[in-house]
Amino acid sequence: MTTLGYEQPLNEKVRSYLRLEYLKEQMDSHFVHDQKHRCFYPLFALCELTERGDYRIDIIKDIDKNVQQLTDKSGSSSLIEALLTVKEKLQTPERTGSKLKHDRFLSALKQRFNMPGACCNFDLPQLHYWLGLPWEQRVAQYRQWQRHFLPLLDSVTLLLNIIRTPSIYSPQEAKAGFYQGIHDKSLSLIRVNLESQLACYPTISGHKNRFAIHFVDFNSQKHTDNTINFQLAICE
Amino acid sequence: MTTLGYEQPLNEKVRSYLRLEYLKEQMDSHFVHDQKHRCFYPLFALCELTERGDYRIDIIKDIDKNVQQLTDKSGSSSLIEALLTVKEKLQTPERTGSKLKHDRFLSALKQRFNMPGACCNFDLPQLHYWLGLPWEQRVAQYRQWQRHFLPLLDSVTLLLNIIRTPSIYSPQEAKAGFYQGIHDKSLSLIRVNLESQLACYPTISGHKNRFAIHFVDFNSQKHTDNTINFQLAICE
Repeated sequence: MTTLGYEQPLNEKVRSYLRLEYLKEQMDSHFVHDQKHRCFYPLFALCELTERGDYRIDIIKDIDKNVQQLTDKSGSSSLIEALLTVKEKLQTPERTGSKLKHDRFLSALKQRFNMPGACCNFDLPQLHYWLGLPWEQRVAQYRQWQRHFLPLLDSVTLLLNIIRTPSIYSPQEAKAGFYQGIHDKSLSLIRVNLESQLACYPTISGHKNRFAIHFVDFNSQKHTDNTINFQLAICE
Repeated sequence: MTTLGYEQPLNEKVRSYLRLEYLKEQMDSHFVHDQKHRCFYPLFALCELTERGDYRIDIIKDIDKNVQQLTDKSGSSSLIEALLTVKEKLQTPERTGSKLKHDRFLSALKQRFNMPGACCNFDLPQLHYWLGLPWEQRVAQYRQWQRHFLPLLDSVTLLLNIIRTPSIYSPQEAKAGFYQGIHDKSLSLIRVNLESQLACYPTISGHKNRFAIHFVDFNSQKHTDNTINFQLAICE
């Protein structure tokens, strides 16, 4: 039996955090297994997202808010310390990732990566050369590139951890594939655990303290009328 | 010592072939190692390229030309047979890959894949479900998707093989990192073998029977003034 976990952010902040967390995981997968040229997809996505908007101001605010709450509740002092450490690293005059903009190798690759099939040998001979280097050497360089984003990514890891920590899953039933929830406080994240064998997946929508879950049959890609048993956790 | 092979097409036909061959190789890598969601990059690139232009007419013409030449020269009969077999498979009323357009799962993914970091759990819960399936099952489905393109891709493999087969590499020297070549016939492909230890890569440009190779130092990303020894093959 395989249980799959699905998450749906209910506000922009958590939506951004989950996206950054996902990119961090994708980048880290290159350290475990040689992803070849594919390691650049998450790196360039991160470059683009941090170029579009500077996450730092909002993240620093969020850190401050959490530090305050933890202090009030006499929360974990090691967590407070960790938050203050990443906050300090975020407070640099330069925007996250801005230094990588001047990397000629990365710039040449970035221009091509969104074009279909444009990472050919002849499109990017420098990439072909780079891929010929030993994995260890490429991993070391990749770590250098990733390092520019770590203050941001590490902050997100800590903050998501705080959001997810109180998650208590409870068994629920979606009659005719539909479930609706109302909560007394504003919600930030909905989490659903579902058996893969049911051959369906949840599509979750919501806003503030209300949310709805539709279960979709994977094979027909249509709403299922079956009763679906699942585990639900809601995070404020 | 690692020798890296670089190729540069000198006409649009070979340029297309090399791009299709590259995408085939990328797709095949999913059969060797689980590429997770990354397996969709080459598939969608192939969908996009075959949507933009129908390669079949030109490929069929090229097959006919090659069959004629092989027949004239009493060339390999098994090769002629292989060419005629792929030609037959290309002659379908439907355009390559057109059936995949109606696949709802693929369509939903395709819309998202060009957006930075947009393959998150919450963006595409159906992808999350799919990735939870055993690799063998995903590979089987992937083969089904790839199968739509195989007549095209197999033709390209055969035709590129014919173009590359007579390649005879000869040692050459690029003084001050530059080499120029003139040939008496029209060329289709330039092939360069280069030791990785030289820490440089070739950028090749050319047209019809002329070509130039500039060697670029990888670390400075600038033209090198060193004398570079390399192996060169030119294909008509």
